[in-house]
Amino acid sequence: MDYKFSDRISLLQPSAIREILKVTADPTVISFAAGNPSADTFPTEMLAELSASIFAKQSSMALQYGVTEGYEPLRVKTAQRLREKYGVGKEFDNLIIVSGAQQGIELTAKVLCNEGDIVLCEDPSFIGALNALRSYNLRLAGVPCDENGMDTDKLERLLQTTAKGAKLLYTIPTFQNPSGTTLSAPRRKKLLELAEKYDFIILEDSPYHELRFEGQYIPPIKAGDENGRVIYCGSYSKIIAPGIRLGFVCAPSPIIQKLTVAKQVSDVHSTMFFQMLVSDFLSAVDLDAHIDNAVKIYRAKRDTMIKGLTEHCGEQLRWRTPEGGIFLWCELADGSNGFELCRKAGLKKVAAVPGSSFMTDEKAVTNTIRLNYSLPTLEQISLGVVRLGEVFKN
Amino acid sequence: MDYKFSDRISLLQPSAIREILKVTADPTVISFAAGNPSADTFPTEMLAELSASIFAKQSSMALQYGVTEGYEPLRVKTAQRLREKYGVGKEFDNLIIVSGAQQGIELTAKVLCNEGDIVLCEDPSFIGALNALRSYNLRLAGVPCDENGMDTDKLERLLQTTAKGAKLLYTIPTFQNPSGTTLSAPRRKKLLELAEKYDFIILEDSPYHELRFEGQYIPPIKAGDENGRVIYCGSYSKIIAPGIRLGFVCAPSPIIQKLTVAKQVSDVHSTMFFQMLVSDFLSAVDLDAHIDNAVKIYRAKRDTMIKGLTEHCGEQLRWRTPEGGIFLWCELADGSNGFELCRKAGLKKVAAVPGSSFMTDEKAVTNTIRLNYSLPTLEQISLGVVRLGEVFKN
Repeated sequence: MDYKFSDRISLLQPSAIREILKVTADPTVISFAAGNPSADTFPTEMLAELSASIFAKQSSMALQYGVTEGYEPLRVKTAQRLREKYGVGKEFDNLIIVSGAQQGIELTAKVLCNEGDIVLCEDPSFIGALNALRSYNLRLAGVPCDENGMDTDKLERLLQTTAKGAKLLYTIPTFQNPSGTTLSAPRRKKLLELAEKYDFIILEDSPYHELRFEGQYIPPIKAGDENGRVIYCGSYSKIIAPGIRLGFVCAPSPIIQKLTVAKQVSDVHSTMFFQMLVSDFLSAVDLDAHIDNAVKIYRAKRDTMIKGLTEHCGEQLRWRTPEGGIFLWCELADGSNGFELCRKAGLKKVAAVPGSSFMTDEKAVTNTIRLNYSLPTLEQISLGVVRLGEVFKN
Repeated sequence: MDYKFSDRISLLQPSAIREILKVTADPTVISFAAGNPSADTFPTEMLAELSASIFAKQSSMALQYGVTEGYEPLRVKTAQRLREKYGVGKEFDNLIIVSGAQQGIELTAKVLCNEGDIVLCEDPSFIGALNALRSYNLRLAGVPCDENGMDTDKLERLLQTTAKGAKLLYTIPTFQNPSGTTLSAPRRKKLLELAEKYDFIILEDSPYHELRFEGQYIPPIKAGDENGRVIYCGSYSKIIAPGIRLGFVCAPSPIIQKLTVAKQVSDVHSTMFFQMLVSDFLSAVDLDAHIDNAVKIYRAKRDTMIKGLTEHCGEQLRWRTPEGGIFLWCELADGSNGFELCRKAGLKKVAAVPGSSFMTDEKAVTNTIRLNYSLPTLEQISLGVVRLGEVFKN
């Protein structure tokens, strides 16, 4: 039978990265292609202990249906931490627990945009978000970026020309995926002004911002949101564990209300058990200390990767050292095709993602690749960059 | 600020039932309004034990990202049980794990239907599904039902007239929510013929079918699907526990492929931990025996409710005794408004859902109410029907 799919879905392809990841199931392949946190950062013992306690004392609630907005104690603790530590969440805001920040992005597209609406994004950007936007037949308008993130002057010109009437702007302002860059404070301010002037909503996706190794802290865009123009998506995936599928959205109450209705028809609610477990975890431990530990692990991995790249690929690759997060974005110095490099690297049993995968234009050809250092061990990183260096020797 | 929402979402309201349920947080209210299974049926001890073992031996995998299609051993066991026990799943089919059957319904709407497409549904039907369809701006065409489910003669007339060109038909053929009725075997056959003749896809939602108390087993519609016209949604919510948010979709491979892409942008994957836990549970216990236990519990509750209703509301309410599932559908004998009855019942501290909530026409007025007997205890059921009887006395 020949199936007819919806217009919005018929052209959508599976994430190239997730397809690459399936290939890397081969244990001899060293993967720099993932976006996974390291299992070494998972607070396994504490989760196991708290989990046993939930099964013993609160199993009926943990295994039963819950409300769509999320488990109340987790909502309260999440909102409180966001407000007190990052200035995120004003009087007019509310918070919903979602099944990972990915769900926050998908639901935002669903409730705000009609098919054909224009959405601005960093070029390059997170493929999971781009595909979520594509899955509603939205038109992506890529904004050029430099070492300080999205170029807001170029953005304004787009808003006056090809991206006129854009409804939404999607950004990962801190330790961006895939580029590793951070949007400067003046540009964050400018972004809010542009949102006001050109009447669009900012979707701020910030799963990595707490993984800062060095450099000056820059407050979230949402912290400066005086008029209810920013939807803030956060995640417990990179600071606790991704398999539990828990994130959160802080946004003006009318938007949270619609997101709630949309989530209700999507998955009713996120798993109660893990909402309770994370809530208990937040009470039992010092989350900041737990994150500091992850930061130490990732800083060492970044340093190892950069040391190895300098030694083995220093002439062929150029990169900017990221101040945090889990990704290193590299340019091929000779301008050659990043896709071709990744293909050859695969033959040497090291996996990387071509930069073209992250472009708003799916047919783009770029001289870039994305390397991840959070998942491989220090030993794998050292060996992987040697293999990468061998690609250039041939 | 005045927010502009998408056309598809701007008119969508939160589920009336879930709003009613929030009110029933009052512990003195006896709720016949929910759709929750009884916590007495949750295999808590076994889950606790297997959970400890996963934390001890497989925590890295359980807490890490997984593939969108689902945890392979769970997929294999689920597909095998469906095929061997129910004849569901042919050569051309495949299976994906989803975050509850609700997600299977929402994703199906997303991948198959363009805005404005016609979808046929039983009238009344499950509000979570109706709202999922509404959330894509689909036009619902209600099919009249009787004690044998959807009237397939009336369905064919709709297909020739007002529902011409319908893309999809949504049905809960066994122990339907809210009516409790089961589609007869000849009508199931007829439905498949109509799907072929009028070129539509059948979305078979079957979360309750294993909760049969008595009567003749009728195979799923999907078991007779020779041409790849049926998408089958199942759930572990009613036979293990709903808080874990796990269901599955068995459908022709090209459809599963699109559902996978859509799920990837929606929540990446369902929680790994619970997928592994359910997989281990299926290996550790006899699921059929576990379900038999739940059936015994629910049969006793149904009998208690019917006995009480007969005694206290026998003249004012009429019902058909359901052969399984968790709902009892009642008609007011004098034809008066079910909404009004539910309002008055609320004042007597017993909650029920007006039948109008389940109609494809949201403005419909009906003389029906839906009662749930799975969640309340036997004592609460007995007391609740006395309170319901008191509504009629005034």
